[in-house]
Amino acid sequence: MTPTTIAEHPLDKAVRLEPRGVGLYRGATTPDYWNMAGPFGGTTAAILLKAVLDHPERRGRPVALTVNFCAAVAEGEFEVSVRLVRDGRSTQHWNVEMTQGETVASTASAVTGAERDTWSHALAAPPVLPPPHAVATMPTDGRNAWLKRYEFRYVLGEPTRGLASAEAPGSAATQAWVRDEPARPLDYLALTALSDTFVVKILNVRGDVPPVATVSLSTYFMADEAALARQGARPLAAVSDARVFRHGFNDQSAELWSDDGQLLAVSHQVVWFKG
Amino acid sequence: MTPTTIAEHPLDKAVRLEPRGVGLYRGATTPDYWNMAGPFGGTTAAILLKAVLDHPERRGRPVALTVNFCAAVAEGEFEVSVRLVRDGRSTQHWNVEMTQGETVASTASAVTGAERDTWSHALAAPPVLPPPHAVATMPTDGRNAWLKRYEFRYVLGEPTRGLASAEAPGSAATQAWVRDEPARPLDYLALTALSDTFVVKILNVRGDVPPVATVSLSTYFMADEAALARQGARPLAAVSDARVFRHGFNDQSAELWSDDGQLLAVSHQVVWFKG
Repeated sequence: MTPTTIAEHPLDKAVRLEPRGVGLYRGATTPDYWNMAGPFGGTTAAILLKAVLDHPERRGRPVALTVNFCAAVAEGEFEVSVRLVRDGRSTQHWNVEMTQGETVASTASAVTGAERDTWSHALAAPPVLPPPHAVATMPTDGRNAWLKRYEFRYVLGEPTRGLASAEAPGSAATQAWVRDEPARPLDYLALTALSDTFVVKILNVRGDVPPVATVSLSTYFMADEAALARQGARPLAAVSDARVFRHGFNDQSAELWSDDGQLLAVSHQVVWFKG
Repeated sequence: MTPTTIAEHPLDKAVRLEPRGVGLYRGATTPDYWNMAGPFGGTTAAILLKAVLDHPERRGRPVALTVNFCAAVAEGEFEVSVRLVRDGRSTQHWNVEMTQGETVASTASAVTGAERDTWSHALAAPPVLPPPHAVATMPTDGRNAWLKRYEFRYVLGEPTRGLASAEAPGSAATQAWVRDEPARPLDYLALTALSDTFVVKILNVRGDVPPVATVSLSTYFMADEAALARQGARPLAAVSDARVFRHGFNDQSAELWSDDGQLLAVSHQVVWFKG
């Protein structure tokens, strides 16, 4: 029998880590997720989380991940090292570092925790969106490569140059259906990358894209494995907003919802912008 | 002449660090900010930030701080080590660790950045609250010590046992005036501690306080030194909310506003709870 060749999804290729010892890995950037001056931060975040998930002492699922983007990641190879800082009864705390030569390109802290069934209660309500098939797909031709690795169906706030200006700022609020392109069953790695798929807010608010870079990104995973499995490869309902642009930084908060109305992840970031 | 003795503010005592070498400090817990089973997390966060601010290579003001609470801090001494991970042109990235003996009690990552004047724009609106003097002060007699180190004037959602229950959950939304007690001029250390002064959300939502602990706390500083100086020792307008309690964790987001309507900091956390 000839084995069937199943093509590796671009995300799985981007987060592929070759073990080099306990807690040590080597990987490489891929052109699939290239951004303006380096890889898409969402894949960097997913790579740092994968280093934790691949660690032999890891128990439980991701609860929190904070990624600090220290330097532009250059095209090519990188090393990732992960350290179990604290092995507690209910949670494990991890520190992760991505290096290229002498340069620390990014760091992360992650918390993993055992799957637990507890009292649960949702206070926030999912966005009310028309079904994905009723919403036009955002064109990504001629844009940064990473945008082509997602299918965006914006209901509100599709990022568009020139709709706003410094003198007449626009809203930062967005609502969209979003999924990997090609479609891929949801897991914590994909969810991590998806939590950074909100196009830089200054485009919506000021109408242009100056030099801009996420400084720090924190994602909280509110869903268990079963909820991700139920969602499968269907689009997530994603909402995002920003509160203020001041002194060269802006904040951003986002929520990622399953299509049956469960909050899968919340994600916050602070972004540096020039001028 | 007899020197005038000015009593040290309890917060300054709590964050006092004795240098033990470059990036190495020793400190000790104080009873003033004791919580249920260790010091108030806000002071731990402020201590970790102070270690960064005291570092001789530090330039600029705090932009982002993420604190991971790994283990209960025991009463007594602790050591803090801080490492400059990346010294970039516009930002510096720091990793911090608090240890007691062999135990890593907490870790932090911090980003500092140069003061810059840029285009600025506020999208979020400050809460509309009656003036502080028109709002009753929350009684803190007989409660955990750290609560006595703040003056809380709740306009909405004063945390009270028994108002909600598992079967009839309450809202997590709060609005309050809050300041250090005794009053103290605002700086980044006080602002950091203030960003964790939102009483555990499960009390508002379920009406009780099971074993509960913040796992990870991220604070983004949107204000410059001048804005903090303008605010001085007057109460901040603080709002907070939570989105979901599920699988033993809940999220929380908060905003801290100056009394002239500027967003000084936003803060997010994920909290572990039992049962």
